[in-house]
Amino acid sequence: MSDYIRRNILDMPGYVPGEQPKKGEAVKMNTNENPYRASESVYDAIRRVADEGLSRYPNAVGEAFREAASRVYGLPADWFLCGNGSDDILTILTRAFVPEGGLLRLAYPSYILYRSLAQIQGAASEEVLFNADWSLPGYFGAPPEPESAFHLRPVPGTKLGLVYLPVPNSPSGTVIPKEQILAFAESLPCPLLIDEAYADFADGNCIDLVRKSSKIMISRTLSKAYSLAGLRFGFLIARPETVTELIKVKDSYNCDALSIAAAAAAIGDQAWRAENRRKILATRAVLTQRMRALGFTVPDSQTNFTWNVHPDKSVSHKAIYEYLKAHGYLVRYMVYPGWEKVAGRDDGLRITVGTDGQTEECLDLIEKFLS
Amino acid sequence: MSDYIRRNILDMPGYVPGEQPKKGEAVKMNTNENPYRASESVYDAIRRVADEGLSRYPNAVGEAFREAASRVYGLPADWFLCGNGSDDILTILTRAFVPEGGLLRLAYPSYILYRSLAQIQGAASEEVLFNADWSLPGYFGAPPEPESAFHLRPVPGTKLGLVYLPVPNSPSGTVIPKEQILAFAESLPCPLLIDEAYADFADGNCIDLVRKSSKIMISRTLSKAYSLAGLRFGFLIARPETVTELIKVKDSYNCDALSIAAAAAAIGDQAWRAENRRKILATRAVLTQRMRALGFTVPDSQTNFTWNVHPDKSVSHKAIYEYLKAHGYLVRYMVYPGWEKVAGRDDGLRITVGTDGQTEECLDLIEKFLS
Repeated sequence: MSDYIRRNILDMPGYVPGEQPKKGEAVKMNTNENPYRASESVYDAIRRVADEGLSRYPNAVGEAFREAASRVYGLPADWFLCGNGSDDILTILTRAFVPEGGLLRLAYPSYILYRSLAQIQGAASEEVLFNADWSLPGYFGAPPEPESAFHLRPVPGTKLGLVYLPVPNSPSGTVIPKEQILAFAESLPCPLLIDEAYADFADGNCIDLVRKSSKIMISRTLSKAYSLAGLRFGFLIARPETVTELIKVKDSYNCDALSIAAAAAAIGDQAWRAENRRKILATRAVLTQRMRALGFTVPDSQTNFTWNVHPDKSVSHKAIYEYLKAHGYLVRYMVYPGWEKVAGRDDGLRITVGTDGQTEECLDLIEKFLS
Repeated sequence: MSDYIRRNILDMPGYVPGEQPKKGEAVKMNTNENPYRASESVYDAIRRVADEGLSRYPNAVGEAFREAASRVYGLPADWFLCGNGSDDILTILTRAFVPEGGLLRLAYPSYILYRSLAQIQGAASEEVLFNADWSLPGYFGAPPEPESAFHLRPVPGTKLGLVYLPVPNSPSGTVIPKEQILAFAESLPCPLLIDEAYADFADGNCIDLVRKSSKIMISRTLSKAYSLAGLRFGFLIARPETVTELIKVKDSYNCDALSIAAAAAAIGDQAWRAENRRKILATRAVLTQRMRALGFTVPDSQTNFTWNVHPDKSVSHKAIYEYLKAHGYLVRYMVYPGWEKVAGRDDGLRITVGTDGQTEECLDLIEKFLS
């Protein structure tokens, strides 16, 4: 059978998500899930749909969510596209804008999935290296670019179809100034997707840029700030004429009746989100402070995780990860080949903000390991 | 923005699913949903997941469902791939096997979505016409084919990547003999997907063919026979080495925690399925019999709907559809351009089996309209 599968699929390694141990086997601080239970209004909505039954197809565009999002963000409902997680949104965008043999640009190091999306499509990706302070060089915005600046550079002549920029970024937790993002969009020969998976934990967001530039689109997820990773719900904010075309690319019923109702309830409870954010940010401050006190370099985070790199190369990030895992704490050990040219080390620890107790215990373990 | 969207997307009309009126606005006999409420074990599973919470990512491959399916079908768990509806499965297959500029073959008239999947991928589709008795010509199985036999024939030279064959078919409700399907697969230069969305209502199925030919795969949905159209859950049965490659193409977490648990519960309750099937088949017999008595040609159905064509062209199918709609009954009015060459008329009415009461009332209305 593998004779018939497309070469680009056979050749790709496949995206590997973070470890998902069985419930109760470990404290999960590795995939940026939220340690708190979602708003009870979400679970009430799920129970209501279960009572009403699931024998009918759901609304094809998730109208109930679009209307709820419209009230929250002050944009018309047709500026929103619902997705089965923001991964579904990213898949739809890749398929709509990047042909086979086309080119996708991304910042590096960032979300590893972007490269997989290009590979599935049979497209190439070029990766622009962040600077050491996690700022981006100006040529992120426009071709032609100096060869040397790219971590991964495809053969010349491929046409740039789409650019992915996560703001805030993972693993760094940092943001790019809005004026620079707008300048990038204006100079790019293609659309720019701002992946705002973590924007609810940041000081600001880029939603007003969608009005300012027709080339800018924004993706969001309910997995992080709404504590609903298990629900699979994300959305896109874009001009309605773009949304109309993207609806042709998505699966006819890409969101189920439970997730549409639950997501509408989640986004409708902004008081829950604000209170959850307050808790996460308070714990994030402790996490950042203590990791710095232990000698790690930790950028100011605008997300629900921190990126921790020890300047002393004799301190093994991997050994810390393994020590924590052995003690029931999962954090994310990340390796970004090539990044050492800029940052001195190619690896680091990405630690998700847990509850206060989980975070303190994890920090105690790291302290114990280092002493 | 539309300057940047791929030409194949801009040019395609987009798949339009059947009408979905708001709850209570009409009796829905147009999209082959099941009129009965799913097994309560399904709703218990949903409530259990809601109690446990959704803050964690789901199992990436829906292991709980695969294990339940393994017990029902007697195949190892790694022969199953979970999908966000069987549409997700069809999308994954198209992306894995059909490159941009490639070719997809399908039987015509059948599920309209197949053509849309080719269009999204930037591929062509060729459509082999059924015979008047809904059998398929032998050349469905092998190139080269006579030009005249195709309803839609792309430019020569494109490479056949995948063949879609729904068994039972929609709108006809009919099946193709298993020996012929196996012969098709053996002579085809690519894999064959048997879309068994309706197989639970048929006298048999093709699951044993997956063991007999490495080129055969089967897709299933829980939307119809398990009364879960609102849940979005489908699955593929294929060789494990194929499933491994397809996992690279799917979204990382394509099924949510609620749907995995619900689908596992649904397939685990085969007693519910058998009893539901018994009811649907009894009502289907009444529907078939009365429509024939009213003068319609109705093939013996192996599904939860019937295909109704009146041999007298002065009887307008569309007028019947509109009359029923005005009286609160939605059936599916279908037009298949080109089909009149074979069948005399290019349109007809596809009527989903409702409850006994709904079906009788719908039939009474048709009788009233005709008299």
